[in-house]
Amino acid sequence: DPVPIDLHLPDNYVQHTLKTQKELPPITWTNWWRELNYISLAVLTITPSIALYGVFNVPLCWETAAFSVFYYFVTGLGITAGYHRLWAHRSYNASKGLQYLLALAGAGAVEGSIKWWSRGHRAHHRYTDTELDPYNAHKGFWWSHIGWMLVKPRRKPGVADVSDLSKSPVVRWQHRWYIPLILAMGWAVPTAIPGLFWGDWVGGFFYAGAARLCFVHHSTFCVNSLAHWLGETPFDDKHTPKDHMITAFVTVGEGYHNFHHQFPMDYRNAIKWYQYDPTKWFIAVCSFLGFASHLKTFPDNEIRKGQLTMQLKRLRETQDGIIWPGDAHDMPIVSWDSFQEQSAKRPLILVAGFIHDVSTFLDEHPGGRHLLVKYIGKDATTAFFGGVYDHSNAAHNLLSMHRVGILQHGYRQGLDDKTIPPSQRLRIAKY
Amino acid sequence: DPVPIDLHLPDNYVQHTLKTQKELPPITWTNWWRELNYISLAVLTITPSIALYGVFNVPLCWETAAFSVFYYFVTGLGITAGYHRLWAHRSYNASKGLQYLLALAGAGAVEGSIKWWSRGHRAHHRYTDTELDPYNAHKGFWWSHIGWMLVKPRRKPGVADVSDLSKSPVVRWQHRWYIPLILAMGWAVPTAIPGLFWGDWVGGFFYAGAARLCFVHHSTFCVNSLAHWLGETPFDDKHTPKDHMITAFVTVGEGYHNFHHQFPMDYRNAIKWYQYDPTKWFIAVCSFLGFASHLKTFPDNEIRKGQLTMQLKRLRETQDGIIWPGDAHDMPIVSWDSFQEQSAKRPLILVAGFIHDVSTFLDEHPGGRHLLVKYIGKDATTAFFGGVYDHSNAAHNLLSMHRVGILQHGYRQGLDDKTIPPSQRLRIAKY
Ligand code: HEM
Ligand code: HEM
Ligand SMILES: [Fe+2]
Ligand SMILES: [Fe+2]
Ligand SMILES: [Fe+2]
Ligand SMILES: [Fe+2]
Repeated sequence: DPVPIDLHLPDNYVQHTLKTQKELPPITWTNWWRELNYISLAVLTITPSIALYGVFNVPLCWETAAFSVFYYFVTGLGITAGYHRLWAHRSYNASKGLQYLLALAGAGAVEGSIKWWSRGHRAHHRYTDTELDPYNAHKGFWWSHIGWMLVKPRRKPGVADVSDLSKSPVVRWQHRWYIPLILAMGWAVPTAIPGLFWGDWVGGFFYAGAARLCFVHHSTFCVNSLAHWLGETPFDDKHTPKDHMITAFVTVGEGYHNFHHQFPMDYRNAIKWYQYDPTKWFIAVCSFLGFASHLKTFPDNEIRKGQLTMQLKRLRETQDGIIWPGDAHDMPIVSWDSFQEQSAKRPLILVAGFIHDVSTFLDEHPGGRHLLVKYIGKDATTAFFGGVYDHSNAAHNLLSMHRVGILQHGYRQGLDDKTIPPSQRLRIAKY
Repeated sequence: DPVPIDLHLPDNYVQHTLKTQKELPPITWTNWWRELNYISLAVLTITPSIALYGVFNVPLCWETAAFSVFYYFVTGLGITAGYHRLWAHRSYNASKGLQYLLALAGAGAVEGSIKWWSRGHRAHHRYTDTELDPYNAHKGFWWSHIGWMLVKPRRKPGVADVSDLSKSPVVRWQHRWYIPLILAMGWAVPTAIPGLFWGDWVGGFFYAGAARLCFVHHSTFCVNSLAHWLGETPFDDKHTPKDHMITAFVTVGEGYHNFHHQFPMDYRNAIKWYQYDPTKWFIAVCSFLGFASHLKTFPDNEIRKGQLTMQLKRLRETQDGIIWPGDAHDMPIVSWDSFQEQSAKRPLILVAGFIHDVSTFLDEHPGGRHLLVKYIGKDATTAFFGGVYDHSNAAHNLLSMHRVGILQHGYRQGLDDKTIPPSQRLRIAKY
């Protein structure tokens, strides 16, 4: 058995590597032609050129159009359900037959072998947003979309183990026959099917072959670019991955990327039934038919924790944006006599141990000025707390904003819940 | 000057009154005919009978239809902008002219004089949902809608002061001439305008008079029934009032009743511009034209406190529905030697001072079984916290669920933030 490449990593591998490993020099106007990755460059420029030529010169019949869309989904699922969720993340088990089908379909997407792809993708998850991430989103939208393939990597991606894949006969088989497989699945099959069935060899080549391939490419690339740029972060905002419906539509369901980076071994990307995740639907159908099993899901309890934390994080901003009553520890402690004396000069009212200056509120009081005036220099606790009127929570909150002091020995027993305005009984606490 | 009736209320007025004041006997099959309020009963049954007769016997021309809708809004605004927001709640000041207009329009709604109406309404706010509330929503939808008017009140409504209104010449004038005013504004004017301008006296009487009056009645009654039944409680859920768009449409904008009960002296019911509150728009236009002034609004800071509390309340249910890691105080404290000994029998891993049993997780670990096995009986803190892999917040949360013990003397300095899983750093605290 092959030994996992990361078995003997030291405990400080990441920090140590980032500090000591050399990067290639940055790309400049003088060195760029030496730094290009000519193979990817060829694949990613010649394919769209062929497609564009076809669009302007070859008529498109509806059968070929429909087949191209169909084949887009077939090869797309090869990547999403195969390369990504099955091999890179082991999020379910597939029967031998399904594995071969996915390996073939994935080859038709012409994005490298399962082994190469998964190695890079595991490094992306393992070192997301760092220099060891091969498609580090912090280096810009275009870098993560396509730039990282067009030039030689500036730095070796971080260690990621794929020894499990090296053991898989299907993965080994696909890696071994990769060049013939992409010629067959990427070009020959999409040309031959329209050719043999409705005589449209040329349309098949240009539309189901070249144009479809461009779409599959940029669709998958969007998982590295768009999915790290557009949308919300309902599960965690530590890193760049985001959730967005548009990304999901563009990527055959890989658009709930915030969820995915938190729970990468979950066979789902979308957890709600109404969200668009055809890759999940495909896997579920395969499982129903007996071709897939052991569909992994992250415990719901832990998923909800992530959501709760993010919601609290947002509410914490609200909490921080609100003006709260002054801290009781900063208030003067006033004797009863001093309270009486002061009350002759300004309208002070005692409620639940706190002395309140209501000068600005006398004429605003919905219950009337007279009821406040009546309690100047007196204890209005009972009246305020329902004896005369059971004030709303809003009134309690407002009251707390008028605190100016604490009555000495005035903190009566059993009143603790009255001294805390309702808006501060539930609050977001931070360790 | 009249003395406010509630000036000398004792501090325990509410509880004392509820305990000592007698209620009338409940309505039964034998006593109901003696308990009916025959005046209201007449108004509330004869008007719809006239309207129904008209619907089946009198043709409706479009001018009269349009005028009826218009007059519905005029008399509706008389209640909402006049009776309710101006007089009952003093939420703004109105010029003499506007006051007379509103008093006339409000008389056209035939719901009692300003003084009578405001006295009941203030009691409703002051004793919401209690026995002292004349239209206590806890007594059922139909009671709060219309029942409370059809029978004699079972108990004197709680004290509510209207001495400010007794001082107002407009209010006194309307109260004095109330019977002629309702005959004029409720019946004569809506009959005469269609009669004089397009010759439809009969249509005017049946549609702009009777039918329009029924709609205005039940529209206003909905504020006491529907607005206490249907919708959300975004500001406070201590009492029954609720916010709902449908109620707003039905009641000329009085449908944000949860807000209104929290902030009754706010001239608005809806605070968002896209919510339906034509009464607010009317007041704002009057203010723009110089007929209204001193439009009161509750401080935004306090409004946001209410919203925050309610959102936290809902999240607290989520928090309570989640399973959290066991309390550190309940865990055994384990010596290093015992940790080593135990690790030979089951997979124990030390992270940030806690000992974790990962038996159920070995084969689930996305990073592979080998990385966990390597750390059995060892301290994986550095590796887990980024040295090998900077685990997601979800991984930290999951980790905390595997805690089985605390290493004796093992709590290293500076690690405090590592011992608290991310989902517990922000949490809703309750006093
Ligand atoms: C000193 C600080 C006080 C503050 C900040 C305050 C605040 C408020 C507020 C905001 C309301 C509007 C309704 C509500 O939100 O519940 C209100 C209504 C009222 N308050 Fe106060 N209040 C104070 C003291 C008192 C006292 C001492 C009394 C009685 C002795 C009193 C009696 C009333 C009554 C009867 C109403 C009802 C008005 C109505 O709905 O018609 N208030 N108060
Ligand atoms: C003992 C408790 C552990 C738990 C509960 C745990 C949990 C997880 C989880 C949930 C993931 C998925 C990705 C994520 O959510 O961040 C993950 C990935 C990973 N873990 Fe752990 N882990 C543990 C220990 C370790 C240790 C000790 C190491 C290293 C020595 C390690 C190395 C990795 C690696 C390298 C990955 C990346 C897999 C990938 O994305 O390809 N884990 N772990
Ligand atoms: Fe990603
Ligand atoms: Fe992934
Ligand atoms: Fe109400
Ligand atoms: Fe009201």
